[in-house]
Amino acid sequence: MLKKKETLVALAKKGIITPEIKAVSKFENIDPEKIMEGLSEGTIVIPGNPNHINLNKIAGIGKGLSTKVNANIGTSPVNCDIKKELIKLKYCIKYKADTVMDLSIGGDIKKIRRNFLKKCILPFGTVPMYQTAVETTVKRGSIDRMTKDDIFNTIEQQAQEGVDFMTLHCGIIKETVEKLKRNERLMGVVSRGGAFLVKWIEENGQENPLYQEYDRLLDIAHNYDITLSLGDGFRPGCLNDATDIAQVSELIILGELTKRARERNVQVIIEGPGHMAINEITANVMLQKKLTKGAPFYVLGPLVTDIAPGYDHITSAIGGAVAASAGADFLCYVTPMEHLSLPDEEGVKEGIIAARIAAHAADIAKNVPMALNWDREMSYYRKNLNWEAQAKFAIDPMKINNRKKIKKSANGKTPCSMCGEFCSMKIKI
Amino acid sequence: MLKKKETLVALAKKGIITPEIKAVSKFENIDPEKIMEGLSEGTIVIPGNPNHINLNKIAGIGKGLSTKVNANIGTSPVNCDIKKELIKLKYCIKYKADTVMDLSIGGDIKKIRRNFLKKCILPFGTVPMYQTAVETTVKRGSIDRMTKDDIFNTIEQQAQEGVDFMTLHCGIIKETVEKLKRNERLMGVVSRGGAFLVKWIEENGQENPLYQEYDRLLDIAHNYDITLSLGDGFRPGCLNDATDIAQVSELIILGELTKRARERNVQVIIEGPGHMAINEITANVMLQKKLTKGAPFYVLGPLVTDIAPGYDHITSAIGGAVAASAGADFLCYVTPMEHLSLPDEEGVKEGIIAARIAAHAADIAKNVPMALNWDREMSYYRKNLNWEAQAKFAIDPMKINNRKKIKKSANGKTPCSMCGEFCSMKIKI
Repeated sequence: MLKKKETLVALAKKGIITPEIKAVSKFENIDPEKIMEGLSEGTIVIPGNPNHINLNKIAGIGKGLSTKVNANIGTSPVNCDIKKELIKLKYCIKYKADTVMDLSIGGDIKKIRRNFLKKCILPFGTVPMYQTAVETTVKRGSIDRMTKDDIFNTIEQQAQEGVDFMTLHCGIIKETVEKLKRNERLMGVVSRGGAFLVKWIEENGQENPLYQEYDRLLDIAHNYDITLSLGDGFRPGCLNDATDIAQVSELIILGELTKRARERNVQVIIEGPGHMAINEITANVMLQKKLTKGAPFYVLGPLVTDIAPGYDHITSAIGGAVAASAGADFLCYVTPMEHLSLPDEEGVKEGIIAARIAAHAADIAKNVPMALNWDREMSYYRKNLNWEAQAKFAIDPMKINNRKKIKKSANGKTPCSMCGEFCSMKIKI
Repeated sequence: MLKKKETLVALAKKGIITPEIKAVSKFENIDPEKIMEGLSEGTIVIPGNPNHINLNKIAGIGKGLSTKVNANIGTSPVNCDIKKELIKLKYCIKYKADTVMDLSIGGDIKKIRRNFLKKCILPFGTVPMYQTAVETTVKRGSIDRMTKDDIFNTIEQQAQEGVDFMTLHCGIIKETVEKLKRNERLMGVVSRGGAFLVKWIEENGQENPLYQEYDRLLDIAHNYDITLSLGDGFRPGCLNDATDIAQVSELIILGELTKRARERNVQVIIEGPGHMAINEITANVMLQKKLTKGAPFYVLGPLVTDIAPGYDHITSAIGGAVAASAGADFLCYVTPMEHLSLPDEEGVKEGIIAARIAAHAADIAKNVPMALNWDREMSYYRKNLNWEAQAKFAIDPMKINNRKKIKKSANGKTPCSMCGEFCSMKIKI
């Protein structure tokens, strides 16, 4: 069992330019000193568990870096096929997600995860509470009978196996649950892990173990250099519930927990909404940045309307672009199937590409180095009607290569069917 | 031949609540006086040509009203099939575009338009320059040989036939063409109508007839109560060219032309970008509103990145949502096929729904009356796992009704495949 003696943050605080920093620096075209500084102050994370042996495409997430995209895959009790999930993992890599999370909640969760980890070259995340909840239900008949050891043993097991980052709902506390009950919501708690914990707190009358024994969590995170993704258990599940007392109260707790993690040299990112009207997004990003002193912000959408099942890759691309433009660092993809079913591999592809479009559009807006160059290259070849070169720069080359009725001419230029002889690109002025 | 004695604006200025105002008032849930006031001051338009006999679903566009969506259909020289276009028109109506534009530039343009007009119950727009350019090319061999009478005769012909609103590139003037040449662009002029006119100006050394004889245009517009959609011939075709000297110079001219139209009681909307980075959109909307004293703003996107052919319904949904949140009133849809080919009917559907999502998300952000109610209804039924009711409120009910493996229970509640027994909606707290 590999364990790391010092975390990335500890090394960065000593001024050491590690191979991880060099790799991110090269990818982002940013001075390594900037990355080191971001790691030291907690505005940048580079998730990587030394036990994730085949992690070979690391990602820096945070201040000044390009916006990253996570793709969720995994089983459910009613849709559980490891082979299908491994195909989805291939799609994640092919369509350039930056990280992958396994949200499996059906079947043999340990076996599924181990299969994923064998194949996953990207930073790999989980929500350990899912495994704990499923195993507790099998062993003891109800999530309510989960013990503290159940929770921490799962986390340690997953850390040993090489999980790089973990969603943990440490910010759900009894006091906020009371606030939630006093301030009615339309949708209640839509975070699955959050709902498990709220129910556990209510049934057992005890404080959330992830909060109460946060130092025990930090010990594990420190030993395996796990990046904590502090979950937003009270994220809004509809526009009506956004930016309410429960959501903001939890964020305040997360701000305090962020400080404690930094003191232990543990990397932290903060999860955020959710469903939220466009006009609330920028303020929410500002709030997160202030309350957590600039921790990387990982948004789950935001979905800017509730009325578009089947199109939620679009509702979340809108919200994600606005959020990342305002400073969010990490977008969790949403597939067209969100609110309907688990995605198939095509849904995974659609979700990743929509989120990457949002991320890139935001990178231009927030002046990420070199981001606009991609658009300039694409536009140059578009102007010249050079379809082969356009395919090289298109986010999905197949959309160009698969066009029907392409008639190739000798010089590699092919017409589209929009304007024929009246193409504005052909009019020389 | 029907002609109207007084335009809608003239009647509004007299304080008359016309049937058009009443219809818009009812649809928007806004006092008719507000609509009358908006028409009088030019911040609201209601396109409607008395000769468009079967127009029965009018749309108010502008200040305080819900954001509207236009869908472009029509032929090209290499893709010309009236039957296919009429199917697309059906899709426009079925998927609830608010207006339709015929951008045909291939085949018998007059015949195609007349076919559309017979079936189109929505406000119907055209770009008359396309017909002029195609006919001139046939008759005289080159667009450059187009005469002033060719231009105005086409406009009058289309007005007589019942076209409700027309894109006219009146703001392209010799001086701005010179500015364009002095300030190099990556993509040049991507507006097709704009490119025709620039070439004509350059070849003939004359001023743009639509500008020079603007009063002649206003006469026709006044006679048929045509809504002028003042085109942005210099709209940016890539992010690199956005908010440049040519674009802003044209907008200044359009501001002056808006004033002159209002003095003649002619309705005007202003067209806008185009390709544009997210962080420039809000400033562009502000600029348009200031320079035109609040004329309705009709944006063609904006597409927030150039790199996503095949996904430009998404790039434009992002830009459209941001623009409409900032005050844009009217979104021209963009289909996934933009930059690749003409859309098929599925592309029309995808384009309309993406634009409607953007419009609705923006309506919530800008506090359009009742907009959020739709989301509240949807979320209520989502929380209750009532799929039948969700289908009624979903922007595309088929996405819910077509779900595979739906097992109906006696009470009409059906499971999705996401969480099974671990569904957060089922956890009562």
